Amino acid sequence: MNKIITISREFGSGGREIGKRLADELGYAYYDVEVIKEISKEIGMSEEYINNISERGVYPIAFHFGKTFASLSSLQTKQTEIFVKQQEILKKIAKKGNAIIVGRGADVVLKDYKPINLFTYASMESKIKRCYKKATKDEILNDKEIEKKIKKVDNNRKKFHDILGNSNWGQKEYYDLCINTSNIEIKSIIKPLANYIQECFRRYK
Amino acid sequence: MNKIITISREFGSGGREIGKRLADELGYAYYDVEVIKEISKEIGMSEEYINNISERGVYPIAFHFGKTFASLSSLQTKQTEIFVKQQEILKKIAKKGNAIIVGRGADVVLKDYKPINLFTYASMESKIKRCYKKATKDEILNDKEIEKKIKKVDNNRKKFHDILGNSNWGQKEYYDLCINTSNIEIKSIIKPLANYIQECFRRYK
Repeated sequence: MNKIITISREFGSGGREIGKRLADELGYAYYDVEVIKEISKEIGMSEEYINNISERGVYPIAFHFGKTFASLSSLQTKQTEIFVKQQEILKKIAKKGNAIIVGRGADVVLKDYKPINLFTYASMESKIKRCYKKATKDEILNDKEIEKKIKKVDNNRKKFHDILGNSNWGQKEYYDLCINTSNIEIKSIIKPLANYIQECFRRYK
Repeated sequence: MNKIITISREFGSGGREIGKRLADELGYAYYDVEVIKEISKEIGMSEEYINNISERGVYPIAFHFGKTFASLSSLQTKQTEIFVKQQEILKKIAKKGNAIIVGRGADVVLKDYKPINLFTYASMESKIKRCYKKATKDEILNDKEIEKKIKKVDNNRKKFHDILGNSNWGQKEYYDLCINTSNIEIKSIIKPLANYIQECFRRYK
């Protein structure tokens, strides 16, 4: 069975950076937005809309669907279609080879693979700092606005897990390791973290 | 400044084993019951009583105090004396050299040392299994009784933290790393864990 590492993360806590660097260190495939791109290709919906459904929550407004506007009445159908497709794609990824998947409910969908599930979190101060560093020129937000965004994204991630039938998002009991990134330099902890995870996998052999 | 690692742990999650092995790996001094022994020596109370106060909670019954029975009216005074002494001893330990301290509220008392704070936890099933392995011949408890004991000890550890003015016991946000020991073999993760912690300390240099 291939080895799967899933990373759930608070917005701004560096989960994506950990995932990418771990994938390089371990020689695993890395998936994040790639999952969304794949869904988009297969069912012809825009990546933005799929991301809204799968991570950012669904809002009761008309939304962009391919080049047309879908009616609200079809919302449920579209949601279901995306969920099913996402699960298919995640399972396809897991069959391909060892992989690290950030977000997308991979911890729930791929639980038969006995993945190592990580959760990254940080103090609000540290997350805000990271958001400033990563902001594009168009994103001019102040501390309060960033904090509001962080809380909203995390809340939607939690909701997405609830929809998948798992209400444990962010609960330490549900993860193999919970990493506070507030006071660490991510690149410096990758080697020991990779070694730690490899030891965890030995238990499943 | 000396390097301090504190380990808080759910009862039965192997925090003590992690502490001892990490201390060996890193060449740090290790403290657990040693703190209680030291207090006992310095203020002449029995180790059992000190342990009751500092970790297991205090019950309103007559209790053993040296070779006499202390009256309930002196309870507050004795508690305060133990708390003060424990803090003194923890600070003395921290001044001596690099150290790993399991429990005893060291994470709160020694916060000026910017310790790396770990929390170990595990599934109830795994904790019960560990308790069976560690039980002496006199301890004949069934699963339900062990579970009750685990919950009681953890609840008292939480209360002890509350008394120290810190109500974050077991909250992941408060720790640098939270380790689920349910599916790992502790001795196999010690080396990567030690390396991880050493990287964390670099940030405080």
